[in-house]
Amino acid sequence: MSGQMTDERRVRDVGEFGLIELLAASLPAEVQIASGLRVGIGDDAAVWQPFPGEDVVVTTDSLVEDVHFRRDWTDWESLGHKSLAVNVSDLAAMAAIPRLAVISLGLEGDERLGDLQALYRGLGSLARRHGMTIAGGDIVRSPMGIVLHVTALGETLGRRVLTRSGAKPGDLIGVTGTLGASAAGLRLLGLDAGDPRRHAATASQLIEAHLRPEPRVELGMALLEHGATSAMDLSDGLLGDLPKLLTASGVAAQLDEGNIPVAAAVRALFPGEWLDLALRGGEDYELLFTAPGHDWDRIEDAIQKAGGTIAAFGEVLARGPGTPDIEVIAPNGSRRTISGGAFDHFDEG
Amino acid sequence: MSGQMTDERRVRDVGEFGLIELLAASLPAEVQIASGLRVGIGDDAAVWQPFPGEDVVVTTDSLVEDVHFRRDWTDWESLGHKSLAVNVSDLAAMAAIPRLAVISLGLEGDERLGDLQALYRGLGSLARRHGMTIAGGDIVRSPMGIVLHVTALGETLGRRVLTRSGAKPGDLIGVTGTLGASAAGLRLLGLDAGDPRRHAATASQLIEAHLRPEPRVELGMALLEHGATSAMDLSDGLLGDLPKLLTASGVAAQLDEGNIPVAAAVRALFPGEWLDLALRGGEDYELLFTAPGHDWDRIEDAIQKAGGTIAAFGEVLARGPGTPDIEVIAPNGSRRTISGGAFDHFDEG
Repeated sequence: MSGQMTDERRVRDVGEFGLIELLAASLPAEVQIASGLRVGIGDDAAVWQPFPGEDVVVTTDSLVEDVHFRRDWTDWESLGHKSLAVNVSDLAAMAAIPRLAVISLGLEGDERLGDLQALYRGLGSLARRHGMTIAGGDIVRSPMGIVLHVTALGETLGRRVLTRSGAKPGDLIGVTGTLGASAAGLRLLGLDAGDPRRHAATASQLIEAHLRPEPRVELGMALLEHGATSAMDLSDGLLGDLPKLLTASGVAAQLDEGNIPVAAAVRALFPGEWLDLALRGGEDYELLFTAPGHDWDRIEDAIQKAGGTIAAFGEVLARGPGTPDIEVIAPNGSRRTISGGAFDHFDEG
Repeated sequence: MSGQMTDERRVRDVGEFGLIELLAASLPAEVQIASGLRVGIGDDAAVWQPFPGEDVVVTTDSLVEDVHFRRDWTDWESLGHKSLAVNVSDLAAMAAIPRLAVISLGLEGDERLGDLQALYRGLGSLARRHGMTIAGGDIVRSPMGIVLHVTALGETLGRRVLTRSGAKPGDLIGVTGTLGASAAGLRLLGLDAGDPRRHAATASQLIEAHLRPEPRVELGMALLEHGATSAMDLSDGLLGDLPKLLTASGVAAQLDEGNIPVAAAVRALFPGEWLDLALRGGEDYELLFTAPGHDWDRIEDAIQKAGGTIAAFGEVLARGPGTPDIEVIAPNGSRRTISGGAFDHFDEG
């Protein structure tokens, strides 16, 4: 797309219907007319045939300007990518095959058409890589900033899904990839341009992790296939999300802090904060999961074949009366307990 | 619910997770655990089994505060009703069976819990009447006002749907119910409290039409069953929406203005404006459709059996070079043509 002139016209100049045509034209053709899609963009609703007998997996997520993103911290293509990625990540956590998405776009009206085309290119590019169809949506006026609402539909393979509620005492607790990169990237975006950390060789990798998270679709399917008992994707930080999985499964956990996989760049750039970024930083969109120890090697092989990594850093415990929700063992052997207080979207502290 | 104390606590007092529990508890049990739903509220995604071999019909719509509703003009239960109704109306226009909805709720944080419970009661009550399941969603912070984003899923009966693109030259153009009531209700809400029209016997009926539109689900299915060739729901006004149907079908139209069904209360309260309210007023959520003349009586019988009414007020014409999109014949025989300029959400004029 480099060298292409940006369309400087505004949404108001072409109106809702002109915009719909223009955005549709920014999507690759194959993400608009996929097999199984009978009616796509432009009717009252989209019509899609799931594989007969399979279940449909549905998730929805919104990105609100100045809550989930800042226009001056992201490029539009990344924003399009991320709006779909956070939804596909939920499908990945259920081990579902991504199939369809519908987009509801809240716009002020003075957005540049070129920027919105870039948004749809980012969205379309991720959709194409996962074989998804953008099947329609809705454009509304949103006077106080941009809102991106995406609903993604997937389907099961053999009617099997990976829920949050299957963790069993004795299971290992693991995670794909490493933690903290997205929160570190967000921190970097907030630093003064003069801060040397902004110019570290690894800075762009951390910022990329924040702006363009990769949903772990293949890894979720490999986890289910090879014996994982529960999974969820990490959007609100490990200590924000793990309690949800434990609560859904009716269990407790013991974590070995030294085994929590933290991105090396996070340790290097934030020597005093890396653990906090890994434990409490959100938006990693890695998969948190549990699996019996005897399946671990098989799962690890499968994940590696799919191009990923996993690390075990804890164990599921039975939840007894008085049992702490999460006990964390530090590398020096000291223990502390963490109550199930999760990240709260309304806690501005 | 009368006599029940309103919960005066605010969203911020209980946080996201407390709120999710509280809202789920405001929904009737049967709309949370329906047949076919395997995983509902509380996991990464909902899992639902459509009837094997049928198609899934998906639609999404957002209601933005101060664009689509005003907190001082609606009660919360009506707002919950409407947020789901406008989506179910899209399913109705496809002749799909409503099955599932997911809700993404954007909140400022200082909303009263009692109000949000009322919102969910309105939503749950409509869902129950249509046998729908509320399968999950997402709660985000929205600093500049409430945003209700709903995605509704339906399924086909025998893989048949009613699209916008099937109108044929010679078909009659009809609509269910009457037009203009919602726009008149909105007008009434905007009048001074001292205006006598606010206190007319019919005022509450018009305001009700605006605040609590009824999606025409049974009528949509009857239309498909008995020979309608195309349909869409009316959200942007007859002259805003008809051009979309004509464009999708590649046809033109001639309308007989005197046969456009206008609610009697609209004529009575707005003597100088009723026609404009009926032609250009939005949010009627009636079904606009086309059908061959020889099927009309059969369709009318079926619609009456389903408790509705229809009126024919135009004819589909072939689209030739130079053919006007829409020709309107007034009761005095004069003709005017209207170009396909539709209601534009970004045109603030």
